[in-house]
Amino acid sequence: MTPIQPRTLGTCYYPEHWDRSIWEDDAQRMVEAGLSWVRIGEFAWSRIEPRESEFHWDWLDDAIEILGRAGLKVVLGTPTATPPKWVLNKYPDMLAIDAQGQPRKFGSRRHYCFSHLPYRAEAGRITRDLAERYGSNNFIHAWQTDNEYGCHDTVVSYSDAARSGFQNWLAARYGDITALNKAWGNVFWSMEYDDFSEIDLPNLTVTEPGHIHQLDFMRYSSDMVVAFNKVQTDILRGHTDAPLIHNYMGRIVEFDHFGVGADLDIASWDSYPIGFLSDRLEASDAHKQHFLRQGDPDFQAFHHDLYRAVGRGRMWIMEQQPGPVNWAPYNPAPLDGMARLWAWEAFAHGAETVCYFRWRQAPFAQEQMHAGLLHPDSTDAPALSEARQVANEIKAMPDPKTAKGDVAIIFDYASAWAWFAQPQGADFDYFRLVFDMYRALRRAGQNVDILPPDAPSLDGYSAVFAPGLMTIPDGLRKILQSTETPIILGPRTDTKDINLTIPTPMGPNVEGLDVTVRITESIPPTAKFDLKGGGTARHWFEHITGDAETYIETIDNQPVLVGSSGLFYLGAWLDEAGFDRVIQMFVTPHKMPAGVRVRDTDTHRFWFNYNPHSVTIDGNEIPTAGVIWQKL
Amino acid sequence: MTPIQPRTLGTCYYPEHWDRSIWEDDAQRMVEAGLSWVRIGEFAWSRIEPRESEFHWDWLDDAIEILGRAGLKVVLGTPTATPPKWVLNKYPDMLAIDAQGQPRKFGSRRHYCFSHLPYRAEAGRITRDLAERYGSNNFIHAWQTDNEYGCHDTVVSYSDAARSGFQNWLAARYGDITALNKAWGNVFWSMEYDDFSEIDLPNLTVTEPGHIHQLDFMRYSSDMVVAFNKVQTDILRGHTDAPLIHNYMGRIVEFDHFGVGADLDIASWDSYPIGFLSDRLEASDAHKQHFLRQGDPDFQAFHHDLYRAVGRGRMWIMEQQPGPVNWAPYNPAPLDGMARLWAWEAFAHGAETVCYFRWRQAPFAQEQMHAGLLHPDSTDAPALSEARQVANEIKAMPDPKTAKGDVAIIFDYASAWAWFAQPQGADFDYFRLVFDMYRALRRAGQNVDILPPDAPSLDGYSAVFAPGLMTIPDGLRKILQSTETPIILGPRTDTKDINLTIPTPMGPNVEGLDVTVRITESIPPTAKFDLKGGGTARHWFEHITGDAETYIETIDNQPVLVGSSGLFYLGAWLDEAGFDRVIQMFVTPHKMPAGVRVRDTDTHRFWFNYNPHSVTIDGNEIPTAGVIWQKL
Amino acid sequence: MTPIQPRTLGTCYYPEHWDRSIWEDDAQRMVEAGLSWVRIGEFAWSRIEPRESEFHWDWLDDAIEILGRAGLKVVLGTPTATPPKWVLNKYPDMLAIDAQGQPRKFGSRRHYCFSHLPYRAEAGRITRDLAERYGSNNFIHAWQTDNEYGCHDTVVSYSDAARSGFQNWLAARYGDITALNKAWGNVFWSMEYDDFSEIDLPNLTVTEPGHIHQLDFMRYSSDMVVAFNKVQTDILRGHTDAPLIHNYMGRIVEFDHFGVGADLDIASWDSYPIGFLSDRLEASDAHKQHFLRQGDPDFQAFHHDLYRAVGRGRMWIMEQQPGPVNWAPYNPAPLDGMARLWAWEAFAHGAETVCYFRWRQAPFAQEQMHAGLLHPDSTDAPALSEARQVANEIKAMPDPKTAKGDVAIIFDYASAWAWFAQPQGADFDYFRLVFDMYRALRRAGQNVDILPPDAPSLDGYSAVFAPGLMTIPDGLRKILQSTETPIILGPRTDTKDINLTIPTPMGPNVEGLDVTVRITESIPPTAKFDLKGGGTARHWFEHITGDAETYIETIDNQPVLVGSSGLFYLGAWLDEAGFDRVIQMFVTPHKMPAGVRVRDTDTHRFWFNYNPHSVTIDGNEIPTAGVIWQKL
Repeated sequence: MTPIQPRTLGTCYYPEHWDRSIWEDDAQRMVEAGLSWVRIGEFAWSRIEPRESEFHWDWLDDAIEILGRAGLKVVLGTPTATPPKWVLNKYPDMLAIDAQGQPRKFGSRRHYCFSHLPYRAEAGRITRDLAERYGSNNFIHAWQTDNEYGCHDTVVSYSDAARSGFQNWLAARYGDITALNKAWGNVFWSMEYDDFSEIDLPNLTVTEPGHIHQLDFMRYSSDMVVAFNKVQTDILRGHTDAPLIHNYMGRIVEFDHFGVGADLDIASWDSYPIGFLSDRLEASDAHKQHFLRQGDPDFQAFHHDLYRAVGRGRMWIMEQQPGPVNWAPYNPAPLDGMARLWAWEAFAHGAETVCYFRWRQAPFAQEQMHAGLLHPDSTDAPALSEARQVANEIKAMPDPKTAKGDVAIIFDYASAWAWFAQPQGADFDYFRLVFDMYRALRRAGQNVDILPPDAPSLDGYSAVFAPGLMTIPDGLRKILQSTETPIILGPRTDTKDINLTIPTPMGPNVEGLDVTVRITESIPPTAKFDLKGGGTARHWFEHITGDAETYIETIDNQPVLVGSSGLFYLGAWLDEAGFDRVIQMFVTPHKMPAGVRVRDTDTHRFWFNYNPHSVTIDGNEIPTAGVIWQKL
Repeated sequence: MTPIQPRTLGTCYYPEHWDRSIWEDDAQRMVEAGLSWVRIGEFAWSRIEPRESEFHWDWLDDAIEILGRAGLKVVLGTPTATPPKWVLNKYPDMLAIDAQGQPRKFGSRRHYCFSHLPYRAEAGRITRDLAERYGSNNFIHAWQTDNEYGCHDTVVSYSDAARSGFQNWLAARYGDITALNKAWGNVFWSMEYDDFSEIDLPNLTVTEPGHIHQLDFMRYSSDMVVAFNKVQTDILRGHTDAPLIHNYMGRIVEFDHFGVGADLDIASWDSYPIGFLSDRLEASDAHKQHFLRQGDPDFQAFHHDLYRAVGRGRMWIMEQQPGPVNWAPYNPAPLDGMARLWAWEAFAHGAETVCYFRWRQAPFAQEQMHAGLLHPDSTDAPALSEARQVANEIKAMPDPKTAKGDVAIIFDYASAWAWFAQPQGADFDYFRLVFDMYRALRRAGQNVDILPPDAPSLDGYSAVFAPGLMTIPDGLRKILQSTETPIILGPRTDTKDINLTIPTPMGPNVEGLDVTVRITESIPPTAKFDLKGGGTARHWFEHITGDAETYIETIDNQPVLVGSSGLFYLGAWLDEAGFDRVIQMFVTPHKMPAGVRVRDTDTHRFWFNYNPHSVTIDGNEIPTAGVIWQKL
Repeated sequence: MTPIQPRTLGTCYYPEHWDRSIWEDDAQRMVEAGLSWVRIGEFAWSRIEPRESEFHWDWLDDAIEILGRAGLKVVLGTPTATPPKWVLNKYPDMLAIDAQGQPRKFGSRRHYCFSHLPYRAEAGRITRDLAERYGSNNFIHAWQTDNEYGCHDTVVSYSDAARSGFQNWLAARYGDITALNKAWGNVFWSMEYDDFSEIDLPNLTVTEPGHIHQLDFMRYSSDMVVAFNKVQTDILRGHTDAPLIHNYMGRIVEFDHFGVGADLDIASWDSYPIGFLSDRLEASDAHKQHFLRQGDPDFQAFHHDLYRAVGRGRMWIMEQQPGPVNWAPYNPAPLDGMARLWAWEAFAHGAETVCYFRWRQAPFAQEQMHAGLLHPDSTDAPALSEARQVANEIKAMPDPKTAKGDVAIIFDYASAWAWFAQPQGADFDYFRLVFDMYRALRRAGQNVDILPPDAPSLDGYSAVFAPGLMTIPDGLRKILQSTETPIILGPRTDTKDINLTIPTPMGPNVEGLDVTVRITESIPPTAKFDLKGGGTARHWFEHITGDAETYIETIDNQPVLVGSSGLFYLGAWLDEAGFDRVIQMFVTPHKMPAGVRVRDTDTHRFWFNYNPHSVTIDGNEIPTAGVIWQKL
């Protein structure tokens, strides 16, 4: 594997959008701004191969040459997220089908079904063509596969291809139909099948389909993404030693990123703090108003930590918001300083490279209101000078390696699917639950590692949290018996087996922790169950029994946090005060002003001020949208 | 007809879900808990007949034998709500079609269209097979047809079968197309037809279809439910003298329950107080919070009274909530005591039997989070001890016959359809209107009878209310001329003829009551029209003219309640204070703490405390979730 | 062109709905009430031609004769909004297709696709039949084409006819596919086409289609409405000299009314003040409550002024609300006096005729709850006496010609489409923006003219406002250089070229006004950017640069209103206080109580009291819902 790089900046560039006459100047300006990387090509299929087997390589040859000669390292994307119209003409049934049975048509992007094998082969074919031409090109220092898997809800498709693929997948998983009928509990409503070919996709049923039917379809759909990606990585590996990357997104849980990441070298993600605040974060109006032009102070950090795990230590920002975006319900501009703050926060969390998206705002098409480092008229946009500042600051900063976490949280994509299929309460969402705990750890100033459910060890942490884990995998179950680290399970953890069935004995079934969840309540937003000593349960409340000692209970004496021998079970979703209490049992929080966050590297402590006003920490003022660091 | 039974308890059991080895123990535990009845079989088609004409009777024979020998009376359900996959393979067009034109697919339950005649025959065929085998089985003391007609919005289907069935139904109703064109007012927008075969279903029209087009389609759809059920009752009557039952649901008005009930002996319903509070009740947040773990204090009583009428005096609870359910948006657990309170309330309102749903929580499939009397691991769930308490209390209580109502309300399903087709105000809903009046009567401590629109007499009540009755049927119109009982019509009553057309003279047209509604206002939630003397009109306000005396008027002197010679017309939907004033003109209210309700039997008065705190009545404390009774 | 008529009243009548025996009496009562005009026929196709080529003219002959002889002037409508069932049988593919791909079925009205050429021809054919029979009938004094184009979202259809029509339209507009690919920026996501036949409609794409793809489809769809209408006007012109009218609606912007209007003589519209308040107006609950039974005080005036422009000076109200309607979410009754106030307000704004819709409330079909001048039982409804009062008052009032506006606003339908395709903020709506400015002008007591974007002159106004104009047309750009009138552009004005692309130099590009919009923020409803001196920006905020002088700025010193040499640019959407400040830079406001509005004719000033209470102006009391006038 490529050794850790010094921290670098980059940008995303679309030579095909601009007259060739300005490429050279663009490349010069990138270099002058201190950028090292440039990603190109990921939407350019129609310019590379406008008609089947008619290749126009020269412009791309030139672009790579011009950028590379200017001193930039090129990331070349496979263009498979945007198959040209002729590909669709060739495979009219390659479109994904929505849950209502309608084809998701050509005219934007990601118009393909992951289950469609001829398109998967076609995507492999264009990947091979690119790999053969550029695999040994010295200007290309990394490859990106496709773009933003899962964007626009594209993991799941209800196509004929998906149905037959799913049937085969089920046959392989269960062997015979009797086993499936039993695993799925199909006796329940006479839903038993005689043959795998009878099994339809779990959409448009009269009422909800079996939760395991849904879960297995999500498992299958995730596997299709992994397989689609692997076709490309297998081909690229044959032609290049450069690292392979995919750029993931924020709060996308429809496929197993660990699975995709296993075939790649680097996990990058697309960080749009202000867009995400508007578009995909549960928060009060006051919170959204306070962080309107800064983004949520934990959302980026969470994904940095998550994707550092997905990348097995190697993480990038492939797309960093530089100004207003176009796609959120509302699109304010960042405060001055945020484009710098976000980059430094990414570096502090271990990012090797931060690429601003995009170099120049496009004047046309769907994203014409998405800001770039340049305005459409090529004048400097505000983020350019901030990028330049970061580039200069990087030089003065010895390569900072992000610190090992003080604490860890386990994140499991399959649990997200399980609870999506079986929320039981209208506002139960796995990501939200995990993120609520993560936020509490951040409020306490902790460095957090996010771990996959098959992490080989939990040692070296003050505590490890595993909320909402549908089933404890065998490996983890063993580790729980041996680790010295305090482990906090729940709510909802290990209450199901892998078929989303309630086991007997009822869970959690963890040796040394005598706890059983026998009754579960989902609670409407208007209701709360208060805790003795402060805090309240909301959303979710479990009636837990067993001999474990009670550490937190409700004012009605119902246990909420119990434990024994270093293993703990939390039987409720708590509010901020409640989660803070749980966490303070295991770690000593930093004192920090609200809206400030901290992250350590091996050598430095970084403070990030997400507030729209300055703050003072230990006598040091951090300006609005400011970041400071101190040697540890 | 079978004589009134002593009050009994029961449960719903699915032997096909459990290993045969535990059936005997389950049966013993049911008996020991004091249960007398057990319902089985209603979802077991795939185990009775896994492939066409391949019957597996032995397990069902055994189950009936084991349960019966243990001393339980068995209710056997026809399994027609869950046709197995092979039935669908045989009739691929049997699925209902939703309003968007999509088939409602296999994978859950109720996947059939009531208009599909071959499936109706197939359902009859399996019913006959069951009836022939078990019609004279001594352990079977009652039969249930299908399950929960109308659940999951399954009454209405936009299938080809429905279209041709509707065309035939229209031809039969109107005789010739000119009569239909006239009755429907099709001249209005050149909507006239030349032939019944031209008439399409009233979905997907450019703007709203004719309201009578919709109403007739709902009448037709309701008739299809009646006809579907009658195929089964006709067959069962040929093989058994045991009473025939269907289990209805809460707030389902899409078919005429009186029509279905006419072919049955007992009306049972499925009482899920906490699920209904969350899922299908208009109430303030404060109300929903106060009754979070108890359910609305009037919703169950309303349905007890309604289904007592549907069952012509014989009413059961076939499914009684014992703990959290799985299907409401939020699913809290009942307070301790509620599983007892609900049962006693049902008995006080005339229920013969209360069956808890279900015996043991299923660990798999869609309802695995639905509590039972046992946990999935066979340990006792909280409701079991409450059931046991009720069983003991029943023994000590002479068979209580519910009292005749002090007052009555007329309930008419066709009016619900009429106002669904023509709400005129976005929040006008027939059930809600009737229920608002019912609540006011309950707040006043009245025993209420609910009557069908063709009730043969209104005598013996302090008052009878008929809100929102589209048309007064001929029989009722005659009774109004002869009864001594004060009758309160309106709002909206008798303002249409049977074709949902405004009659001339404009209604209401009741001899002896000089009232005409000429202008109607629907009022947004933000608006109110205050009454002199307290209370306010909301939702709906009529401008009424005529010589009847005014009893209540607005502060602008517009009449609201008028009457003459014992006939009254209420021209508005009122708030609580307003309805209370209307009711107090006719009855003397009991004084009761808020959240407490009362119901009399012939011998006792029962008090139910729905509050999450204790209350005192006449010096007697009723604990939280408690029920007490006194001899009258 | 016909000379300006004296102000007159009329009504809409449906002889086909009533027994012939009452037509004569109806006509007499209309005349006695002071009505001059009667519109008939627009939904009567199935009675004129119940089967293809089978004509029943006699009833219509008689109706025209009876009405005409009674002294009424007849407006005859072509019945093409309601093709009978046999027309659909003849052209089964004539239905519009909704965005989900479903046909919009028969059973109400407007069930045709504007792109369906055979239906367009059929509509021409029935128009010709009518024109031939009645073109020279002396009782017919005007013709109406079709009815309410665009009602029920019927402008846009996703049919096969629309797709091929759109492809041809694009071929004609762009000439060759390369030009289209360039204009649309299709390189962006490899969306390039090889041929016009490959271009699909912009529905059901994976994510949003190209904004120009959407805009061009809206342009095309609008052209289809113009073409559909022109078929009829071309035919009618060959047979009659009577003026041709179409009745438009409120807040319908899906087609270019100026385009349709160019082929007509009079623009009429359907004024439903209370329905519109409930159904299509953004306003606070308090505002909606205050004006519950009066309607918004500016909504009607805006449309009067707009349609006066569409009609090139000639404007009617073809349908005036007389009582509660049936189609809004909530339908309260007007306060006494409003039916008179609305008529006088229309006259003051230049209406020649106000027709109340409808003569008698229909007892059947979809609109049976829509009030008329008569109740269904033929008794007088409240509005009839108000109409009579207006008829008498007209006689005493010399023909008032509406005054030229003090100020003007430019209204451009294509800009509405552009921002619909590219809102950039969830609550950005072109109509709303323009209307917010219009309201501010009305609060200041100004007479407002609304101008098309190709108005030949802007002279003679205190100021002209052009908010949200996507592109400044060439003609207007020239006028800006020569007019003495202060012009206020923005927000968002001239920031795109005609292909909805950001131009270079970035806009606005107006000689003499050094302003550039480089960054745009859309702001959620919870956020505001306050202005120095009062008022706040909301919804939309632009970062503007350039040398123009700053007149208004935020508390953070960002310019909001800038200008030079009589040209101004407003870079934000403001609240009421903010817009009031802008306007007061150019005009001196009248002092008026809240809820009162003013409009001048050449000779009189009219005051309209929209409040539910009386007010005093200059010592004169205006009663609730009252109108007074004074000689100027």
